[in-house]
Amino acid sequence: MEITTDTHSHHISQQFNNELEDLKTHLLAMGGLVEKQVQDAIYALTEGDSAIAEEVRANDRAINDMQIRIDEECTRILARRQPAASDLRLVMAVTRATSDLERVGDEASKIARHAIKLAEEGEPPRGYIETRHIGNHVRNMIKDALTAFARFDTELALKVAQEDKSVDLEYRSAMRALVTFMMEDPRSISRVLNVIWVLRSLERIGDHANNIAEYVIYLVKGMDVRHSTPESIEERLSES
Amino acid sequence: MEITTDTHSHHISQQFNNELEDLKTHLLAMGGLVEKQVQDAIYALTEGDSAIAEEVRANDRAINDMQIRIDEECTRILARRQPAASDLRLVMAVTRATSDLERVGDEASKIARHAIKLAEEGEPPRGYIETRHIGNHVRNMIKDALTAFARFDTELALKVAQEDKSVDLEYRSAMRALVTFMMEDPRSISRVLNVIWVLRSLERIGDHANNIAEYVIYLVKGMDVRHSTPESIEERLSES
Repeated sequence: MEITTDTHSHHISQQFNNELEDLKTHLLAMGGLVEKQVQDAIYALTEGDSAIAEEVRANDRAINDMQIRIDEECTRILARRQPAASDLRLVMAVTRATSDLERVGDEASKIARHAIKLAEEGEPPRGYIETRHIGNHVRNMIKDALTAFARFDTELALKVAQEDKSVDLEYRSAMRALVTFMMEDPRSISRVLNVIWVLRSLERIGDHANNIAEYVIYLVKGMDVRHSTPESIEERLSES
Repeated sequence: MEITTDTHSHHISQQFNNELEDLKTHLLAMGGLVEKQVQDAIYALTEGDSAIAEEVRANDRAINDMQIRIDEECTRILARRQPAASDLRLVMAVTRATSDLERVGDEASKIARHAIKLAEEGEPPRGYIETRHIGNHVRNMIKDALTAFARFDTELALKVAQEDKSVDLEYRSAMRALVTFMMEDPRSISRVLNVIWVLRSLERIGDHANNIAEYVIYLVKGMDVRHSTPESIEERLSES
């Protein structure tokens, strides 16, 4: 009798482990697609490639669907498995991260929309070097945040939170340059505004990467570090 | 014995009900504060009242703290009560809504920051009539979304989703007017950009109200209607 019970409980628990692994895999797959969307949107913008931009727009629906499916998985696990402690934190971190990833997807789609407008107007506007630079920066943050999630790596998560500050600085400096440019050449205003919206989207993507990094710390350490500065996160991590 | 068991189970369940009621009350309290922040931020902007704007900035921390506390409540209920069906949906809807409310608080704080900048510059810029109008519109959407949550009212939630479309139209029309104004008077560019950021924040607040309305439908009907048009939401509601 005991053996049967043990086997059964082992079986249940193994299945539960698989479900949690699947959940994580699905989140990371969504993350991979979102990261590619960001990369393609920046490429479409800086190369004036409207075809790629249209693809990014079309893919957004797939990301939305992934969010809904992953959230259904989370709710199903909560209802059937009644996870506790770190299992529960994993489910909560996944449902939060999926929401941020979906919003990153939205921003990539917006960048693609502006890329199409700018490509139609021809004439490559100012701000592309900065845009490409900040774009690569935030794309790496997303990638690192996902790697940190995959590996439960709080060190890497902290690094992402620290990066967000320098993105903000780069963003502000690029914005000032664009505003000056608009003042010098008022005919360029509506064109430059498109680049400004792209910068704004990139800055948001950095924020979302930062959020995902914070969920990793929650997941691993059980500390909710949202709304904390990187310095205080570092301090709390070193004390834990 | 049976009576004891019944009383006990009744007691447990009553306590669980109270916890769910408390959770809802806390979300609505947070919502009330966020709504006031939006109202005060718009007032500070249109009346050039920097003191109110500073208050809005200072209150943002309280909203962040509320989010963390409400999320802790959600996690505690999930771990201890292992809710199922509509109880589980309530907890998930609260945790999602609290995230949107926190972001609305951030947008109110940003509006307040721009209000301070604009007040310093004196000279009331263009776009305030539109800003006040759109501001009141999205504030009502937040209020209605919260009322819909409080009453489990899917009709009102649908109305909020429908409103979001007209906010988008108002936003686009106001943006066009501001861009034209910048072109006509390039010296106003940096001032008008501040108003543009405010409009952008207001449009976002409308999006968050719409999200909260979608959670109400999820909560009451068990249908995840995120990323759906108001038309398809209406259709799905009428079929349910």
